[in-house]
Amino acid sequence: MTTGHLLFLGTSVLTSLLCCACGQAPAEPGQDRVVRLAELEIDPAQLDSYKAALKEEIETSIRLEPGVLTLFAVSVKDRPTQIRIFEAYADMAAYEAHIRTPHFTKYKTGTQHMVKSLTLVETDPIVLGAKPK
Amino acid sequence: MTTGHLLFLGTSVLTSLLCCACGQAPAEPGQDRVVRLAELEIDPAQLDSYKAALKEEIETSIRLEPGVLTLFAVSVKDRPTQIRIFEAYADMAAYEAHIRTPHFTKYKTGTQHMVKSLTLVETDPIVLGAKPK
Repeated sequence: MTTGHLLFLGTSVLTSLLCCACGQAPAEPGQDRVVRLAELEIDPAQLDSYKAALKEEIETSIRLEPGVLTLFAVSVKDRPTQIRIFEAYADMAAYEAHIRTPHFTKYKTGTQHMVKSLTLVETDPIVLGAKPK
Repeated sequence: MTTGHLLFLGTSVLTSLLCCACGQAPAEPGQDRVVRLAELEIDPAQLDSYKAALKEEIETSIRLEPGVLTLFAVSVKDRPTQIRIFEAYADMAAYEAHIRTPHFTKYKTGTQHMVKSLTLVETDPIVLGAKPK
């Protein structure tokens, strides 16, 4: 999310054993999921605007993009300007398509002045267990 | 996860606007989800054993416990002993039931000597967007 999408390090094509983000039986080997954590600090004066833009971007991405699997955004309790986003994409192609969408471009350009810092944590999945709806 | 389950701070009963962890339309207000991030460092000599125990515990929890919604476990790329777990429970009762289960007790006691450090990050959800299966 945010500028992080443009800083992707090219090291997240994952071949680990992992499950579908929504599979009740959390084991589907051989996936090329791209999974990471984004850690952001937001300008306190612009926090409400940032969160509104983030929610719109996530809801649109999940609705329109088949390869955007999970975008879980939370704030650290009692530190509301500290945002954490757990991101999962089907593969690198899905990620690259995502950052070219109009809704991501709108979010990115609209919030870049609100983001004070961004740290990306690239990851290897161990197991991604979640309930089906 | 791990000892973190026993260190729960009692501040995570959430009433924020958030979606079902697997809802395509990511907005369901008034939920009492408990959501947090656990950050662990594992003894390198016991990493394989730890990951096996973690996978078993997550798979069992997702399969058997209706209130365990999401347990996403990843390792930091190029730092495999650094584990991050994104945890979401339906509510506090689901969390409290979870830590009393036989499979959690087995995991907890079986891995406590493998965990070098644990930091819990209690959170407030902003939006939890994920694809249905």
